[in-house]
Amino acid sequence: MIIVGELINASRKSIKEAIEAQDVKTLRAIAKDQESAGAHYIDVNAGVFEKGEADHLKWLVEIVQDVVDVPCCIDSPNPAALEAALSVHQGTPMINSITLEKDRCDKLLPIIAGTDFKVVALCMSDKGMPRTAEERLSVAEGLVDILLKNNIKVQNIFVDPLVQPVATDQSFGREFLEAIEAIMKRFEGIHTICGLSNISFGLPERRFLNQTFMVMAITKGLDAAIVDPLDKRMMGNIVSAEALAGRDRFCMNYLKAYRGHQLDF
Amino acid sequence: MIIVGELINASRKSIKEAIEAQDVKTLRAIAKDQESAGAHYIDVNAGVFEKGEADHLKWLVEIVQDVVDVPCCIDSPNPAALEAALSVHQGTPMINSITLEKDRCDKLLPIIAGTDFKVVALCMSDKGMPRTAEERLSVAEGLVDILLKNNIKVQNIFVDPLVQPVATDQSFGREFLEAIEAIMKRFEGIHTICGLSNISFGLPERRFLNQTFMVMAITKGLDAAIVDPLDKRMMGNIVSAEALAGRDRFCMNYLKAYRGHQLDF
Repeated sequence: MIIVGELINASRKSIKEAIEAQDVKTLRAIAKDQESAGAHYIDVNAGVFEKGEADHLKWLVEIVQDVVDVPCCIDSPNPAALEAALSVHQGTPMINSITLEKDRCDKLLPIIAGTDFKVVALCMSDKGMPRTAEERLSVAEGLVDILLKNNIKVQNIFVDPLVQPVATDQSFGREFLEAIEAIMKRFEGIHTICGLSNISFGLPERRFLNQTFMVMAITKGLDAAIVDPLDKRMMGNIVSAEALAGRDRFCMNYLKAYRGHQLDF
Repeated sequence: MIIVGELINASRKSIKEAIEAQDVKTLRAIAKDQESAGAHYIDVNAGVFEKGEADHLKWLVEIVQDVVDVPCCIDSPNPAALEAALSVHQGTPMINSITLEKDRCDKLLPIIAGTDFKVVALCMSDKGMPRTAEERLSVAEGLVDILLKNNIKVQNIFVDPLVQPVATDQSFGREFLEAIEAIMKRFEGIHTICGLSNISFGLPERRFLNQTFMVMAITKGLDAAIVDPLDKRMMGNIVSAEALAGRDRFCMNYLKAYRGHQLDF
């Protein structure tokens, strides 16, 4: 499972404040903790700053990469902010995210075309948010087609089928899960990814529902996730589901996590 | 989800002792507790008694049905014991289980042919235990064919694809899950069922792995389970997974369970 640590996102109040205060120590500690907990990418997002997103994002990449060995997941639809962040990023980043919305797509393609960047392709188009698995697959096909034509390798594409709350429509969970399966079958070597906490919007015990839905998504083939790697119960669910799905040779990751007392089971 | 409460099984020491002591009060309390916790069937198993299984099983059915309104799942491959239990059972029981082993199959068919009994069809044949999803589907096809020919309706068949420990072979979880999906697709209206605790044999934190595997099996279409309905965390996982899978209209069961403080999330 490819883990993108989601914590350094300025839409969270404490992170916004830390960025405003240029609190390098706090932000670096969060980056390091996520790496230690198994994050393969550290998401950085400064989207709440209407002015200065580019400067903040560039700064975040610098201070994060000073203390971790993993690359960043640069989380912005803003070309200027992406370019600023990329100008200082070391190694191969993940870009989060391109969509099939014409305006966004046109602006981001020149930045990623022909690179080895990992690219999150969010299933959103000018027709709005997809509701069914079929609609998600259709948007994914459009996105993959464009990305391949722009010399992004299929194994660098991470399709996010876009989670919507099951409390809004009881079919939303099932349609998302079916989309995961359909996308993984349709494009050999592709990845699927999601930030899944939207699934539980409007319901009680959200953390538990999110953990359960993660297990369900892994069952359908999800192989990357934007999560809080410090959530030991979530990580326990991920490690367990991977072992049970036959994606953990001799259950070695599971046993290692158990013996290291790293996770909650 | 159709829940078969598994607790009254004489392979558990406390149950064996309660049966030997004819401790009606204890056994009735366990039956009632399981019914209150949502069991649709109360499993009764006296298979550890080499002599007297028939008498014990009959007695169990009687004392259980004195206090619960749900039918029993009569759990024995022994025709004499099944017939004794059936002679006193009220309502429509579940029979657990027929297999494709010729000897067992020949002995049980006369008892169930043409009835409305629910029948657990365990994917086991004279070739031994199946290893792959394909082998499980093949045994399931053989069993369903025989049951249909003996006038058992497809909607009364509960196929158990047979869980094997993932610690023995890392593919065992995946093959089981794929079998669930294949069987549900192959026969419209059929059910799948399992007692899944074998999956975690040989690994630590078995309860957690069992809960996680239950969520995965529900994701693949499992619609019945032989479990401990008093395990509030397991039941919390089941209710959550069903809501997320779109099998709980308006998430009403989930919200009811949450508000009633019945389950652990």
